[in-house]
Amino acid sequence: MTVSREIRLKTRPVGVPAVTDFELASVDLAAPGPGEVQVRNLWMSVDPYMRGRMYDRPSYVPPFELGKALQGGAIGQVVASNDPDFAVGDIVNSMFGWREAFNVAPKAMAAPGMAALTKIDTHGLPPQAFLGILGMPGMTAYAGLLRVAALKEGDVVFVSAAAGAVGSVVCQIAKLKGHTVIGSAGGAEKVAFLKSIGVDHVIDYKATPDVVAELAKAAPKGIDVYFENVGGVHLEAAINSARPFARFALCGMISQYNETGTPTGPANIIQAVGKSLRLEGFIVSNHYDLYPAFVKDMAAWIGAGKLQWKETIEDGIAHAPEAFIKLFTGENLGKMLVKLA
Amino acid sequence: MTVSREIRLKTRPVGVPAVTDFELASVDLAAPGPGEVQVRNLWMSVDPYMRGRMYDRPSYVPPFELGKALQGGAIGQVVASNDPDFAVGDIVNSMFGWREAFNVAPKAMAAPGMAALTKIDTHGLPPQAFLGILGMPGMTAYAGLLRVAALKEGDVVFVSAAAGAVGSVVCQIAKLKGHTVIGSAGGAEKVAFLKSIGVDHVIDYKATPDVVAELAKAAPKGIDVYFENVGGVHLEAAINSARPFARFALCGMISQYNETGTPTGPANIIQAVGKSLRLEGFIVSNHYDLYPAFVKDMAAWIGAGKLQWKETIEDGIAHAPEAFIKLFTGENLGKMLVKLA
Repeated sequence: MTVSREIRLKTRPVGVPAVTDFELASVDLAAPGPGEVQVRNLWMSVDPYMRGRMYDRPSYVPPFELGKALQGGAIGQVVASNDPDFAVGDIVNSMFGWREAFNVAPKAMAAPGMAALTKIDTHGLPPQAFLGILGMPGMTAYAGLLRVAALKEGDVVFVSAAAGAVGSVVCQIAKLKGHTVIGSAGGAEKVAFLKSIGVDHVIDYKATPDVVAELAKAAPKGIDVYFENVGGVHLEAAINSARPFARFALCGMISQYNETGTPTGPANIIQAVGKSLRLEGFIVSNHYDLYPAFVKDMAAWIGAGKLQWKETIEDGIAHAPEAFIKLFTGENLGKMLVKLA
Repeated sequence: MTVSREIRLKTRPVGVPAVTDFELASVDLAAPGPGEVQVRNLWMSVDPYMRGRMYDRPSYVPPFELGKALQGGAIGQVVASNDPDFAVGDIVNSMFGWREAFNVAPKAMAAPGMAALTKIDTHGLPPQAFLGILGMPGMTAYAGLLRVAALKEGDVVFVSAAAGAVGSVVCQIAKLKGHTVIGSAGGAEKVAFLKSIGVDHVIDYKATPDVVAELAKAAPKGIDVYFENVGGVHLEAAINSARPFARFALCGMISQYNETGTPTGPANIIQAVGKSLRLEGFIVSNHYDLYPAFVKDMAAWIGAGKLQWKETIEDGIAHAPEAFIKLFTGENLGKMLVKLA
C-alpha cells in the first residue's frame, strides 16, 4: 500500500485564493489493477487558467469539485505496471497533478482524442520542460502567435506577462523570426530576463503610472500583434497603439481572474472599428493539430540554442497552493512548478 | 452663374452635435471648366460615421475642416457637361453631399481607385436607393455579415440598430438565408417594422431595463454572429450570449460617438478567451472587391421582392444638420436622407 498526499479544493475562493481554500489529504493507493499502471509524480504544474475552474459555472472545462483533488498537468514516472506498453521507469505526462501518486488505465481517454497517460521521450531535456516550454504553455504561445494572431513579416509584437511561461516563449519565437518585440512585465528581475532574451523594449508595468503612454512611447509607429495575457489597462494600451488591421490573440486576462466586482472593460474598444482590429480568443486544446509542427520547430530552435526558459520552483505537494497563489502576485519568473519527488 | 447652398462645419461638436455647430452658406458656382461637369444634387446622405470626422484627430479618413462644406454620399443629376462621357440628365453618385450643386472633373480620383463621379443606371429604382440599400449602407451590411462575420449554416444572428439603414439589410439577408435573427431597436414603430420583415425576436431596448437579460431570453441557446452597430450594453449582451466560436462584425458603436467622458468598455470581455470569440472591426471601403457580388445578389433579391427598405426624409439643405442629429436620438427608421431637389 502506497500513501499519496493530494491537494483538494476545500472552499471556492472569493477574490485572490487563500491557502485556506485548499486542504492537504492523504489517500491509500492500492496496487494497480488489471491494465493499470501506478505513477509517482515528479513535477506538477500550476497555471492561471486553473483559477477559472474554481468557480462553479459553465465553461469550456467543468468546474473543480469541492472536497476532491484538483487536476492539472503533471510529469511522473511509472513505478508499477500492468500494461505491457508502459515499463517501470517510463516518464509520463498526465492531467493527474495536485497529488503525489495515482493509478490509471493508460488507454482510458482523459478527453476526446487525449489519452490519460502519455509516454515522453525527453531527448535528454529536463522532464519538467514538458510542463513548460515543450508542454501546454509553449504550445499556447506557438498556436496563439503563429495561427491566432497570424504573425507576418514586419509585424511589431506586444506581449503582456512577457516573462511568464507563455509570454517568454511568444517573445522568443517572435524575436527569432526577426520581429520587433515589446514586452510588459513587473519588476527588475523580469525586465533583466526579457532584455537578456533580446526583447527590444521592456515595460515594467509596476514601475509606470501609465502603461498606455509607455507603450505608445515604446512603439511610436504602433503595434501589429498583441498577445494578451493580462487584460485591463494592458488591453487598452494595445488597442490605443494598434495599427490598422492589427491582430490580438486573447490567451488570458490574469488581472481579472480574481475580480469580485465588475471588471473594467476596454474603454477604447470603439477603435477596433476604425482600425479594423481583430480580437480573437483561443483555447490551446482547439489547436493541437499544430502539435507535430510545434515539436519539430521547438526541437530545432532548442537544438540551436535559440530558446531559453526559466523556472520558479516550490518544493513538495504541501506548497502547491502557495505556488498557485503566487501566480497572481506575479512572483514567478517563467514557469511555476511544484517539485514532488 | 448658379447659386449653391451648402452646410459648413462651424464648430467641432462636443457631445451630441447641435444645429449651432453648423452653418448654411451660399456660394456662386461658375460654369463648369474644361473637362468638368456641373451636378445638381437630388439627395444627400447623413450617416453616423460622419460624427467621427467632426473630431480633430487622425483616423481612417481625415477630419472635416472648420469653415468648409462637409462631405458625404450624394445622388445628383448632370446639368451641364464638358466631359463627353457624361450627358445632361445623367444620374450620378459622388461624395459631394452637404451642398446643392458642384462642379467636378469626373475622372479626378476622390480616393485611390474611386472616381469623383460615377454614373448610375437605376434600373427603374428610386435613385436615393443608391445611398441606402444599394449603396454604402447596403454594401456594409453585405460585407460585414457575409465576409467579416463569416455567416454560416445554422448561425443564430443578433443585430443592433436593426431598423437602421445597415441593420435592416443585415436582418433581411440573414433571414432570406434561413437564419434565426434577433434584432434590437428602440420604439414601437421600429419593432413593428422588424417583425414585418420576418425578424424572429425583437428587443425594444428603450423599453427594457436589461438588454443582457432580454437577449439571453430571446436566444436561450446563444448567438453565433453579432452585427455590432451600437456598443455599450449591446456589446456586453452579445458577449454574454455568445456561443463558442461566435464572430462579431464590429461596424459601428453609435452609443459612444458623442461620449465626452470615458466610455464604458465591455466588462465581460474576458469571456472572449474561454469562448474563443472573434471580434473584428471593419470599414466597408476595404471590401469593395465584393461589390460585383453585392450588386448581383441584391438585384436578384430585390427583383424577387425579398428585400424591403424604409426611408426617413428631411426636406432641403437647410435641414441637413437636423437630419444628421436625429441619427443619434434614433429618430430615423431605415435610411436617413435629405431631399435636395
